[in-house]
Amino acid sequence: MTLYQKLATRLREHIQHDFYKSGDKLPSVRQLAQEHGVSISTVQEAYRQLEQEQLVEARPKSGYFVCIPKKDNLPSISRPPQRPLEVSQWEEVLNMLMNRSGNKGVQLQHAMPDMKASTLKPLLKTLSDLTKQKPELGLGYSDVRGSEELRMQLCRLTVASGCQLHPDDIVVTSGCQEALSVCLRAVTEPGDIIAIESPSFYGSMQAIKAANLKAMEIPTHPETGISLEALELALDQWPIKAIFVTPTCNNPMGYNMPEEKKEQLYRLAQSYDIAIIEDDIYGDISYQFPRPKAIKAFDQDGRVLLCSSFSKSIAPGTRVGWIAPGRYRDKVTHIKYVSSSMCPVLPQLAIAKFIRIGGYAKHIRQMRQNYEQQRDHILNAIKIHFPSNTRVSFPVGGFILWVELHPSIDTMKLVERCREEGVNFAPGPLFSATGKYRNCFRLNFSEQNKEKREWAIKRLAAILHDSDTRIEHSAPETSALI
Amino acid sequence: MTLYQKLATRLREHIQHDFYKSGDKLPSVRQLAQEHGVSISTVQEAYRQLEQEQLVEARPKSGYFVCIPKKDNLPSISRPPQRPLEVSQWEEVLNMLMNRSGNKGVQLQHAMPDMKASTLKPLLKTLSDLTKQKPELGLGYSDVRGSEELRMQLCRLTVASGCQLHPDDIVVTSGCQEALSVCLRAVTEPGDIIAIESPSFYGSMQAIKAANLKAMEIPTHPETGISLEALELALDQWPIKAIFVTPTCNNPMGYNMPEEKKEQLYRLAQSYDIAIIEDDIYGDISYQFPRPKAIKAFDQDGRVLLCSSFSKSIAPGTRVGWIAPGRYRDKVTHIKYVSSSMCPVLPQLAIAKFIRIGGYAKHIRQMRQNYEQQRDHILNAIKIHFPSNTRVSFPVGGFILWVELHPSIDTMKLVERCREEGVNFAPGPLFSATGKYRNCFRLNFSEQNKEKREWAIKRLAAILHDSDTRIEHSAPETSALI
Repeated sequence: MTLYQKLATRLREHIQHDFYKSGDKLPSVRQLAQEHGVSISTVQEAYRQLEQEQLVEARPKSGYFVCIPKKDNLPSISRPPQRPLEVSQWEEVLNMLMNRSGNKGVQLQHAMPDMKASTLKPLLKTLSDLTKQKPELGLGYSDVRGSEELRMQLCRLTVASGCQLHPDDIVVTSGCQEALSVCLRAVTEPGDIIAIESPSFYGSMQAIKAANLKAMEIPTHPETGISLEALELALDQWPIKAIFVTPTCNNPMGYNMPEEKKEQLYRLAQSYDIAIIEDDIYGDISYQFPRPKAIKAFDQDGRVLLCSSFSKSIAPGTRVGWIAPGRYRDKVTHIKYVSSSMCPVLPQLAIAKFIRIGGYAKHIRQMRQNYEQQRDHILNAIKIHFPSNTRVSFPVGGFILWVELHPSIDTMKLVERCREEGVNFAPGPLFSATGKYRNCFRLNFSEQNKEKREWAIKRLAAILHDSDTRIEHSAPETSALI
Repeated sequence: MTLYQKLATRLREHIQHDFYKSGDKLPSVRQLAQEHGVSISTVQEAYRQLEQEQLVEARPKSGYFVCIPKKDNLPSISRPPQRPLEVSQWEEVLNMLMNRSGNKGVQLQHAMPDMKASTLKPLLKTLSDLTKQKPELGLGYSDVRGSEELRMQLCRLTVASGCQLHPDDIVVTSGCQEALSVCLRAVTEPGDIIAIESPSFYGSMQAIKAANLKAMEIPTHPETGISLEALELALDQWPIKAIFVTPTCNNPMGYNMPEEKKEQLYRLAQSYDIAIIEDDIYGDISYQFPRPKAIKAFDQDGRVLLCSSFSKSIAPGTRVGWIAPGRYRDKVTHIKYVSSSMCPVLPQLAIAKFIRIGGYAKHIRQMRQNYEQQRDHILNAIKIHFPSNTRVSFPVGGFILWVELHPSIDTMKLVERCREEGVNFAPGPLFSATGKYRNCFRLNFSEQNKEKREWAIKRLAAILHDSDTRIEHSAPETSALI
């Protein structure tokens, strides 16, 4: 290794370990030359190397800076089949879910938030106090729509997403999964067609399957979301009953649909007189502050069913989700009731208090900052270690990203190989109704432990660089995205 | 009031207040005459009066005893319309559910168990300890099928109902309502017909409605359950997809279907090759010990989906239910997952421990005794205070009973009138797909406070005796049961 390569390696490590963070000014050429006892030209050569790797950029008259991760290698816009299809892939989803408990290694497959955050302590204390002091609350039922105290706090909270809600406009659910399932059943009849983003969260798609509906996957841009042009074509051609989107901090791609596009989507739903089911589960942990508006903010006639929960902003184990069902309130209340009757009271009261005393705002402020830093770190790590033809989404909220590998790679095989080596991710086909995106996968970066995350990325990269055909398609395909 | 009437009133009060319990020997005629300073014939006249009221019985050469409540005035066998029908009555159910929180007075409308029992303390302590000591367990997810620890304990528990289950045969749910809903969706396609008991729990019927199914109500005997003859006729005539029954401590009538009849029902399902959804939610609090077998005990080919929860044996707020889905396990796991994802872990672990350390067995032993005494008390109170043409079911488990009034009484009107006076019950039409049983209602007797319960029965009776037409049908009907 030459001197400049040694220096470049050292600087690269510093960047990887966040000693220098995205946007930080790096030491001057002169300073580095002195510190390391090398020549000016060696330092310049090292910086040139890092510039080529897009880790460092030179700014005229200012010096060298750590690159802010860019969106220059985003995944392609998706091109799912343009017809309504039944959802498959349940076996694959179940396989991943069942590997939860017994599994060793680094778990990057589930969209689990950071649950070790110290900002959660006030919530845990309230829960513990309530359980001890008012155990009777844990035994009884709440209102069929959920605790009024919580619904009031939810109204306060949703002001940030541009919504004006009354407690009576809200129905509390067992997490967002129940919210989505209930809404789907409330606005459809069996056999109906639902337009969805592609790729899309597997939980939503399996709910479409279970409700005997068909999914019409719509081409989706990795930066702005569902293609309105493609959606309109589909609406013209098929009797689509509802549009199902996750427009804010999308799962799996992490984009925010621009607000004007959200409004356009709403107008489109209006002109075709159909409902929108809006999954806002990641909305509160958008890195942008104040957070982006929800589509629900533009809703004038109650056709938007806003769904959310605290599973991503706090923790999934609380199982506190909710729906603002608009004009579908009565049907939603009915289906929620038959789905699982009332929800447990204590977690609702604890979260309501957490919001009321400002603990929630403080917590998500911290999470926003952490997740954004962790995104920069993982994007850099991927850039450094993964094959250069890798494409990666650029999340602007949340803690998951979408990786698109060379079309020859089969992530259903990769996932098995990586599991053996202690790295777990969610393979692409889970996010398609028909098993597409075989060369893609979703990664979680909520893990605070940087070394652990970096180790996982390096292991993944090493397996990818390994020319072992076990991870390639048996029969070569053109591109899984076409 | 004559002397003998005064004495009869005093004795009646003693019986009502359980100073003398069902089956107790009463003081001899001589003893009473001495104590009260009255003649032998006065005491004899008083006893004769109480015999007429069926409160007291004379046993040759033994003296007088407090009557054990008898089944001599049971409700008629039901005669629902013999065709599949869509379920209505959601408005009525919602109306009752929504009156939960703001409502004052005595709440006898919900099937809520006694949650003040001291035998629940070990469970509450475990919950409190876990919440404090292992808060991280409250934040994460469990296995998609539920905590293995709980599923193991459930296998132990169900031995009592004659079932031999393996932890892998069990899927944990958010209460029994989710269990029933998931099972319905797992064994049917939209448009299918489900055979159910009549009257039947409104939660099951609303789940039938929400799954786009039709209900075929089958005549049901108040002592032995669903009529197998009527069921077989219906199976011959209609393409029924599944049978949905609550054969052990039935809701609302409280009967146990005899075991040989349970086996016959299973054979019938086998010969028509259809599934049985068995709601066993009250099974553990059968007064009979050991508890009756479940239909699942006879299941040889996995066609019985056994559903239960701890909502009646412990408390509904725990929201821990489960399914033993037999051959439908994969479908059930799928629908459970889309319905509400995983269940909270802490209540599962707390209940598992409660079972393991013997707390659950102790608790239900106590509840069995309490509920049986409370049944005797409420049956006596109804006999004493209600109009003589009242018919009442004879629960052999659980804490609810079914009252059939004179056909001219409209319980949908009665419920409003009684609510004003602070007494709440569940009107009969909620328990029918089509609003029948207008002259019936369901009463909860889990309330430990005897005075409160008796006050409620007296208020109810006073309103019934009041000839006010507000509680009668506007247009006279023959009988709501025909």
